[in-house]
Amino acid sequence: MTRTIVASATREVIIGFDQPFCVIGERINPTGRKKLAAEMIEGNFDTVKADALAQVAAGATMLDVNAGVTSVNPNETEPGLLVQTLEIVQDLVDVPLSIDSSVSAAIEAALKVAKGRPLVNSVTGELEKLEAILPLCKKYDVPVVAISNDETGISEDPDVRFEVAKKIVQHAADYGIKPHDIVVDPLVMPIGAMGTAGQQVFALLNRLRNELKVNTTCGLSNISFGLPHRHGINAGFIPMVIGAGMTSAIMNPCRPQEMEMVRAANVLKGNDPNCMTWIKTYKDYQPHAPGAPAPQSAAPSGDGGAGGRRRGGRAGRAGAA
Amino acid sequence: MTRTIVASATREVIIGFDQPFCVIGERINPTGRKKLAAEMIEGNFDTVKADALAQVAAGATMLDVNAGVTSVNPNETEPGLLVQTLEIVQDLVDVPLSIDSSVSAAIEAALKVAKGRPLVNSVTGELEKLEAILPLCKKYDVPVVAISNDETGISEDPDVRFEVAKKIVQHAADYGIKPHDIVVDPLVMPIGAMGTAGQQVFALLNRLRNELKVNTTCGLSNISFGLPHRHGINAGFIPMVIGAGMTSAIMNPCRPQEMEMVRAANVLKGNDPNCMTWIKTYKDYQPHAPGAPAPQSAAPSGDGGAGGRRRGGRAGRAGAA
Repeated sequence: MTRTIVASATREVIIGFDQPFCVIGERINPTGRKKLAAEMIEGNFDTVKADALAQVAAGATMLDVNAGVTSVNPNETEPGLLVQTLEIVQDLVDVPLSIDSSVSAAIEAALKVAKGRPLVNSVTGELEKLEAILPLCKKYDVPVVAISNDETGISEDPDVRFEVAKKIVQHAADYGIKPHDIVVDPLVMPIGAMGTAGQQVFALLNRLRNELKVNTTCGLSNISFGLPHRHGINAGFIPMVIGAGMTSAIMNPCRPQEMEMVRAANVLKGNDPNCMTWIKTYKDYQPHAPGAPAPQSAAPSGDGGAGGRRRGGRAGRAGAA
Repeated sequence: MTRTIVASATREVIIGFDQPFCVIGERINPTGRKKLAAEMIEGNFDTVKADALAQVAAGATMLDVNAGVTSVNPNETEPGLLVQTLEIVQDLVDVPLSIDSSVSAAIEAALKVAKGRPLVNSVTGELEKLEAILPLCKKYDVPVVAISNDETGISEDPDVRFEVAKKIVQHAADYGIKPHDIVVDPLVMPIGAMGTAGQQVFALLNRLRNELKVNTTCGLSNISFGLPHRHGINAGFIPMVIGAGMTSAIMNPCRPQEMEMVRAANVLKGNDPNCMTWIKTYKDYQPHAPGAPAPQSAAPSGDGGAGGRRRGGRAGRAGAA
């Protein structure tokens, strides 16, 4: 059984086919958030802190941390800012983190200070990326998100994207990195522009799980780009990808409808034992009450808490495969 | 490609893997609705009419019609009452109907007056049922719901339920009824009582589709029996069963959350061409507006309208297989 272990300072979380879906909170990311970018440049981390707390309260299993505030000279500024952001977040919340940067030096700087076992986000099939990121993953013994594009861009052909994922897994093996430490992003196209986008992902998830035996993730909201009432499409997509075998997603846990579908899918896949998280979260839920607040997470540290446990040190993971 | 054709007086609807999910409105059923039962006994069909109109407006593809007002002497009262109810409904709305009764004489009486091509709901694997219902389906050339239980009751073992379904398909073949006119209900257990209930259904749907090549249905809300916030579980179950290959369900179309998930799953399966139904239904949707009304169906006659067309007479169905 494929198990990807991530950890914060004190808590381990397993990403796996038999685990609650791993919700990777996407909010700490200045891309497309000008106000947040400006704050972070000024050294103001109030929004970062608020987003960290809100996402964990809403049920995030992990948090993605991105400090890409500029496309001008990111090599100079991003390592320091990513370290600063990561340290603030890991001192505030006790969930595993995803180190999200396109700057290799920033990823390494963050890996040096990260507590526990973070996830690196990401490597692609581009040779330069593979050679920069995979040695870091080996050196720091951390798992990595593998995005299914390479020098030729993102293929619209899902078979080509599968081959790119396979190539990354093979390259990783050359560095001694096992498939269970690769979390493949098969790339989700907008369904409004490509009517087969959903079917492509469902078919790819099947192959990734059965042929490459890897965990999977995606930028979930891409699917609904350009459509009205995007949250409805996102909410419907979640049980479908979970049913098809996806084991994590980078998404906004502060959207109650989406998180409700994550929790329902966990129940329906048999990954919420005795429906405990569902019952605790919704036992007093009044969806039609005026101004009803969104349900907060019932699990100790994100809804993925069912798959988490206090860390017993790395020796405790020796048997994971 | 498996295609089950149902029809009202003037409209044909196809149930199939490449069609919008067929929503069979469950509301016209006095089981567990004492007030409705009392009204129907008195000859008051106001609620029946209101339920028929509301379900079609909400997006139902078909309507189930049940007149089981009593368990005392149903053989005497039910045929007449079912005919009366069916005629009222088919005169009011132009969607295909499902004739729902455990009384064979009531089913035959309704078949005699039904316009178009109704669905018979249901036959089981019990020999007495098979011998009573299958000849009617052959005589009136109508499809039938096949429920996967027999004389031994409902098995908790999905493999046994599959074998019952297979037995029904084989018996039907003896009567000259093709698999495309059998819509199998694999039986959905409550997930709160049986944690594997979801996985059972997903696995059965795969076998029913690939081995028996039949369309499928279920009493959808069974899955959430006994849990808090049942609509959330139902809503999550819909995209999962659609993703796993289910092609229809007997459900309440007047629940906006569930219908939203049907429409989203149609988009994501590629069965809402150009997302037209989604866009028409939700283009002005303001989910957070106070007192926002539920979106009404954007399709001409139920959301399944994309799969429907004006009837060209039975000759028009000759090529269906």
